Amino acid sequence: MRYGVLGTGAVGRVLAGRLVEVGHDVQMGSRTADNEAAAAWAAEAGPNASHGTFADAAAFGQTVMNCTAGGASLDALAAAGAENLAGKVLIDVANALTFETGRLTLTVCNTDSLGEQIQRAYPDARVVKTLNTMGNEVMIHPERLPGLHSVFVSGDDAEAKQQVAGVLESFGWPPESIIDLGGIATARGTEMYLVLWIEMMQAAGGDRHFNINVVREAG
Amino acid sequence: MRYGVLGTGAVGRVLAGRLVEVGHDVQMGSRTADNEAAAAWAAEAGPNASHGTFADAAAFGQTVMNCTAGGASLDALAAAGAENLAGKVLIDVANALTFETGRLTLTVCNTDSLGEQIQRAYPDARVVKTLNTMGNEVMIHPERLPGLHSVFVSGDDAEAKQQVAGVLESFGWPPESIIDLGGIATARGTEMYLVLWIEMMQAAGGDRHFNINVVREAG
Repeated sequence: MRYGVLGTGAVGRVLAGRLVEVGHDVQMGSRTADNEAAAAWAAEAGPNASHGTFADAAAFGQTVMNCTAGGASLDALAAAGAENLAGKVLIDVANALTFETGRLTLTVCNTDSLGEQIQRAYPDARVVKTLNTMGNEVMIHPERLPGLHSVFVSGDDAEAKQQVAGVLESFGWPPESIIDLGGIATARGTEMYLVLWIEMMQAAGGDRHFNINVVREAG
Repeated sequence: MRYGVLGTGAVGRVLAGRLVEVGHDVQMGSRTADNEAAAAWAAEAGPNASHGTFADAAAFGQTVMNCTAGGASLDALAAAGAENLAGKVLIDVANALTFETGRLTLTVCNTDSLGEQIQRAYPDARVVKTLNTMGNEVMIHPERLPGLHSVFVSGDDAEAKQQVAGVLESFGWPPESIIDLGGIATARGTEMYLVLWIEMMQAAGGDRHFNINVVREAG
């Protein structure tokens, strides 16, 4: 499948690289066509990797993945263009974090979420929130951690969530680790969890190689 | 030890009962001295259980546990009285949830937390936030769930957190399951996690017998 990956930061590069690894054609999009990080990534990732503007990458992708910083996501998607997102699965992995107050806070939470904002802004896109609850190395290599641990999906379109589950499985996520929380409004829960994730990361001296496993009663 | 448990709801009754079971003297406090739920609980829980007003219970306890609804906690603690809380470990298990908007939201989050509000209001109390990330049956019988799963503690006073860890261990929590997140400001993370907890509970058809285990890289 052809993927458009929006964003040239660590999350975008890691996810775009993994998508190429598992057999997809990937175009990385950024604000400008000559972004150095995107060009370097495409050169290293081989013949199935390319780069362009947000609009180029969204037009190229049959599926689009939003890997921009949460505070920049709505602008990036506007640059990508509604016509390049319509009807497509739009995988949103972003978190709307800010350190402006000297401490991590979310720019949207509790009564709304970035996932919902994106779905409202692009009603013809099929938004699925996922992978936003962990560090990027755990996203693409869940086997780095021992035993089972969980990844969440939120979205209004059941078929889109099934497709995303397939992508997660191709990254190495066992089907029983994938938890469907329901509609896109449940992105509130996974986005708000980020505050606890940051606290756990800080309490462990900065180590990002962890995740949570949802444990239920046996039987 | 003598415990004052504030609140007569399910969480208060379950925790007060478990404290009696593991060998403590417990007084349950409520707004009025003749609260029926508190009287019934004390009658059933035996000779080491009693009940009274919020102030009675706080005065009785060497340690005080806030099990009131989050939205009522500051009023309940005001009724308990600063003089009855000063110098004591104050274990806060409350979550400030409301369904007023037709959907669960928090009445405080992101830039503040109930745990911090309580610590600010009672600077001489030694507030420890814990157990607020799970249903009450899991709180007191962690062995209900298979394998390891996690409980968090947040508080500014290291000795108070050690004492609380001892209480948790007496309930059956293995020491390696107890995660110290840091100061009381980290109550933000565990309180905000409640939204994801509710979503997981709803996605599983209302089943509350689950928790999360923090999984880290082996080695």
